Amino acid sequence: MIIVFKKGAKNEEIDNLIKRVEDLGLKPMVSKGTERTIVGVIGPEDVIRLHPLDVFPGVDKVMPVLAPYKLVSREFKQEDSIIKIRDGVEIGSNRIVIIAGPCSIETEEQLKGVAASVKDSGASILRGGAFKPRTSPYTFQGLGEEGLKILKSISEELGIPTATEVMDTRDVELIDRYADIFQIGARNMQNFNLLKEIGQTKKPVILKRGLSATIKELLMSAEYILSEGNFNVILCERGIRTFEDFTRNTLDVSAVPAIKMLSHLPVIVDPSHAAGKWGMVSPLSKAAVASGCDGLLIEVHSNPQEALSEGSQQLLPENFSELVEKLKKISAAIGRTI
Amino acid sequence: MIIVFKKGAKNEEIDNLIKRVEDLGLKPMVSKGTERTIVGVIGPEDVIRLHPLDVFPGVDKVMPVLAPYKLVSREFKQEDSIIKIRDGVEIGSNRIVIIAGPCSIETEEQLKGVAASVKDSGASILRGGAFKPRTSPYTFQGLGEEGLKILKSISEELGIPTATEVMDTRDVELIDRYADIFQIGARNMQNFNLLKEIGQTKKPVILKRGLSATIKELLMSAEYILSEGNFNVILCERGIRTFEDFTRNTLDVSAVPAIKMLSHLPVIVDPSHAAGKWGMVSPLSKAAVASGCDGLLIEVHSNPQEALSEGSQQLLPENFSELVEKLKKISAAIGRTI
Amino acid sequence: MIIVFKKGAKNEEIDNLIKRVEDLGLKPMVSKGTERTIVGVIGPEDVIRLHPLDVFPGVDKVMPVLAPYKLVSREFKQEDSIIKIRDGVEIGSNRIVIIAGPCSIETEEQLKGVAASVKDSGASILRGGAFKPRTSPYTFQGLGEEGLKILKSISEELGIPTATEVMDTRDVELIDRYADIFQIGARNMQNFNLLKEIGQTKKPVILKRGLSATIKELLMSAEYILSEGNFNVILCERGIRTFEDFTRNTLDVSAVPAIKMLSHLPVIVDPSHAAGKWGMVSPLSKAAVASGCDGLLIEVHSNPQEALSEGSQQLLPENFSELVEKLKKISAAIGRTI
Amino acid sequence: MIIVFKKGAKNEEIDNLIKRVEDLGLKPMVSKGTERTIVGVIGPEDVIRLHPLDVFPGVDKVMPVLAPYKLVSREFKQEDSIIKIRDGVEIGSNRIVIIAGPCSIETEEQLKGVAASVKDSGASILRGGAFKPRTSPYTFQGLGEEGLKILKSISEELGIPTATEVMDTRDVELIDRYADIFQIGARNMQNFNLLKEIGQTKKPVILKRGLSATIKELLMSAEYILSEGNFNVILCERGIRTFEDFTRNTLDVSAVPAIKMLSHLPVIVDPSHAAGKWGMVSPLSKAAVASGCDGLLIEVHSNPQEALSEGSQQLLPENFSELVEKLKKISAAIGRTI
Repeated sequence: MIIVFKKGAKNEEIDNLIKRVEDLGLKPMVSKGTERTIVGVIGPEDVIRLHPLDVFPGVDKVMPVLAPYKLVSREFKQEDSIIKIRDGVEIGSNRIVIIAGPCSIETEEQLKGVAASVKDSGASILRGGAFKPRTSPYTFQGLGEEGLKILKSISEELGIPTATEVMDTRDVELIDRYADIFQIGARNMQNFNLLKEIGQTKKPVILKRGLSATIKELLMSAEYILSEGNFNVILCERGIRTFEDFTRNTLDVSAVPAIKMLSHLPVIVDPSHAAGKWGMVSPLSKAAVASGCDGLLIEVHSNPQEALSEGSQQLLPENFSELVEKLKKISAAIGRTI
Repeated sequence: MIIVFKKGAKNEEIDNLIKRVEDLGLKPMVSKGTERTIVGVIGPEDVIRLHPLDVFPGVDKVMPVLAPYKLVSREFKQEDSIIKIRDGVEIGSNRIVIIAGPCSIETEEQLKGVAASVKDSGASILRGGAFKPRTSPYTFQGLGEEGLKILKSISEELGIPTATEVMDTRDVELIDRYADIFQIGARNMQNFNLLKEIGQTKKPVILKRGLSATIKELLMSAEYILSEGNFNVILCERGIRTFEDFTRNTLDVSAVPAIKMLSHLPVIVDPSHAAGKWGMVSPLSKAAVASGCDGLLIEVHSNPQEALSEGSQQLLPENFSELVEKLKKISAAIGRTI
Repeated sequence: MIIVFKKGAKNEEIDNLIKRVEDLGLKPMVSKGTERTIVGVIGPEDVIRLHPLDVFPGVDKVMPVLAPYKLVSREFKQEDSIIKIRDGVEIGSNRIVIIAGPCSIETEEQLKGVAASVKDSGASILRGGAFKPRTSPYTFQGLGEEGLKILKSISEELGIPTATEVMDTRDVELIDRYADIFQIGARNMQNFNLLKEIGQTKKPVILKRGLSATIKELLMSAEYILSEGNFNVILCERGIRTFEDFTRNTLDVSAVPAIKMLSHLPVIVDPSHAAGKWGMVSPLSKAAVASGCDGLLIEVHSNPQEALSEGSQQLLPENFSELVEKLKKISAAIGRTI
Repeated sequence: MIIVFKKGAKNEEIDNLIKRVEDLGLKPMVSKGTERTIVGVIGPEDVIRLHPLDVFPGVDKVMPVLAPYKLVSREFKQEDSIIKIRDGVEIGSNRIVIIAGPCSIETEEQLKGVAASVKDSGASILRGGAFKPRTSPYTFQGLGEEGLKILKSISEELGIPTATEVMDTRDVELIDRYADIFQIGARNMQNFNLLKEIGQTKKPVILKRGLSATIKELLMSAEYILSEGNFNVILCERGIRTFEDFTRNTLDVSAVPAIKMLSHLPVIVDPSHAAGKWGMVSPLSKAAVASGCDGLLIEVHSNPQEALSEGSQQLLPENFSELVEKLKKISAAIGRTI
């Protein structure tokens, strides 16, 4: 941590802060510049993070030097983490994993039709929501446990693992019984109690980046889960909010290489929510694969015109199938498989 | 709702969509322009909101005309809502209410000292957090129920009502027993299960705007609470995330008059979180009062240098006291009181 | 400037960079921490700014410590700058200055009517655009020199100084002959050649913050003008672009106290462009005055329904007059005059 | 254009506006809904754009239906535009074009070394700045005409066309003599006088998206150039400003397919400015190619540690060469060439 004093800070102000740093068991390194005094603090930065050194008289600003996360960092673990979902299905290896399915589970027929189709086309994991975070209380909120039962029954019938969203600490145990992967939505990325609760399971979890979260904050939210003992975290870029309004969100494709630099955790991309338009899912999926992501989360519905949620962004099964063929070629071009 | 067709959309595409609209029990009004066909849909827009008309062939875009919220809207209720906290304390009247106190409850002595001081200076409600949403799992997470007990004991001793944050559906009942006002933080603005749970109590709730929420989304979150039967909602502007980095967030002072136009609910401002710097709390508070807000939420700590959270943004009691005197003058200038 | 090395950076990498710093005539201060090595660089930071130290092997990041601007900074000049426009009219003193007038100069009658009215109501400076930056090439682009002639003639008739926008380096001399204050619009805040050209005159200039400029960048643009010798710069906050779409831009009222902390230059606020809605000009003006601004730039038109530009945001003269009365009360409440 | 009236708007208010619309020579289509009256306006929307209908009494809002641009739109011209630079070099065809070179022209040796190298590696166009838009007046501003001379001499020697930035209307003629392509930087995207001046030449121009410009605004700026008669416009996505601070800007890769939907003009991507870090140029370039862009603009410098500008983001020639090989594979995977 670097403490920058104001021009003209008094010696007693500087001495006062140095004493404080020493009292915390840390070692200050003082540099008196031509214009300002700067104090570098050597030692575990966490100790200082708790203490608001910027309110001391004479201090201009305090600049943290180290990243605030530990367990998720590339420095903590050099090699890429590979999250095993079940035999033959893992996320983070050279094989890019495709997770597909409808936004919401609506009926057994609907889910089964889509599931069989996306599995045939190359998806390894089935997605489908039973609890839906909707901005309006007057829209479809999901089938709840009934939806989870449908999900599990089709999962067993087709032999495909599943991912579904959890929104409430009270539902963690329930969902744990029915699905293979928890999904934490963008709006719950900083629902810290939910993160802790999921951290106490050992089940894989897809953690989506919040609508206006920085990459650092996404990593801090992952840190909550890891710090409780669950290292099976898959990060997901799904678009951030900007002033651009042609797309619903702006897919931050830079987040893929950025997360790869900063963390050992796998990162997947959700092009469906990013764009909010099915016609853009294909180019965004291609861009995501080319940028180095470990998987894609794609919404597919056999009849988007009748979908109970997010009809605008769901692909038809035949379009999904075509897309996977194109993605296989790009994967091969970068030395990976799908 | 307005449906705009693509230039060159086929007649059968237009007829197909018109039939769909009629099947939903709505009345289409077709305008064939020189360049495009436009269909206005008359009837309850909610019915259409559920159905993704933009995925129909030939459709260019679908533009909603009505606001998606009802109960919170100024059209639903013309006169301003006044939320009664207890005898003599209400939010939304001509009197601007000041809610003050430390970010976190740390000890009984700390809270009592601050509470007595801010009450003397003109605060009508005491704030203090027992459950703290922190971005890092390694920082102080609040005293939990122990903190709530301290809060209630001081509330009774000094005769001042209290507001405290609720973060988990499982804690609603607990907090209900100890505090007078629930506070839902920015990070939980779209924790829909929590909104519903709070909606089922009748207790006043301060709902903070999310870091990147639009005003419309804030109103939709409030709609969740009202739709469950709790009309005692106080909206709170606390700064939004932008690219500007001198302040921690950008206080959107326009949100105050905007909410007053769109809704009957009272709106307060939290200048402490918006700026993240105690030195800006004073000018932002003055701006907020001048813009027409119904209250302020201000963090005050008797020793910010030792605060366990948010030391940088908390005012000293003496600075708070001076600020209230200045705010009284501005309130008088706009025909209100504090 | 602080140079943070990667964990595990090699000694030769550190030595290599230290040598580079010394070669530049600067003094490195090395701190070897438990996790990382950090090098503080003592000396004029400008020298280093030119050199990309972050591309040296082993370097993690480079953090500047000093502000990149000098002449505009509060450290360079402690006392507030007061910009004299003409006898009896100055910006930056205790008296808040109101600049008002139509968005565009349309006809002599239109401008004269508005000018007489706003002068009567308390405006000290008349605004009116002759060169209009419009997003569409098919909309009214301003009257050009003809407009400037109208502006000057009314200025002389009514004895009121004027401000008008300059968009092109080729027009600087022309506008210099007709108006008392140059105005540089948000879209030209980083038109560096225009800034330099204006810097070579001695005439006061209102420099508007760019749509997505940081406060620091606004100050850097002002630095361009000052560095050419023109210290008569008035900064203007006019709303920044965010995801919020109820208002056209988001007025960043925090910019007023922030600029006051960082710079000695006066700062005014343009509530008309910020909101894009005339109904919000009044609350935003009040907030701006309460926050400590030195002036307001308000668009007034006697018939907004027929305005050739920005009709939606222009106040009627009678509404403007009422507003000024309210602003006088708020000014008095904070110890200033209008 | 759709005009939505307030709930409870009076009949005379509605009639008043209808009359106004008819006076403008347009045809109103009135829909009286259960809650609101809506008026669709048939006819050329431009006429109405000039007139602020939203200030009429009783009007809630006015929603434009048609895009404000014409000549740049896909509706105006169905097939992709291909911009010919010289024999054998064109942008917008199936072949993806790579434009490479240093940020600034520094010396003849420097430029020649880089130019020869990038040409060998597969670049078809040489970039290099002689006029540099820098945020600080104290940093290197470019060599000016001397730089242009170097650029032209190397262009002729190596037989490679060139692109260079134009910042000032006064320099258009000068640069026209030395370079093959004008480049308009992000900060000048709405320098409308410069756009018009370039529009009067017939030379190809790369128009970069502004830091916070929407896609629609980028197209409107292009419309300025086309409307003056120059159809040789190449659009360039170079990252937008968001709250994310790991990257300097956020590359909006969605802009590539979005522009392809909306316009016939070619679109290229500048990954160097988007990221601001050379280590991210490779993944972003791959993502851009996979998303369907027509070209890349990449900064290359043989000694970034000594670069006079933007050293952090420039690739070494050997890294550039490797990158092109990888991009060729991705191009092949999507059926294009480099």
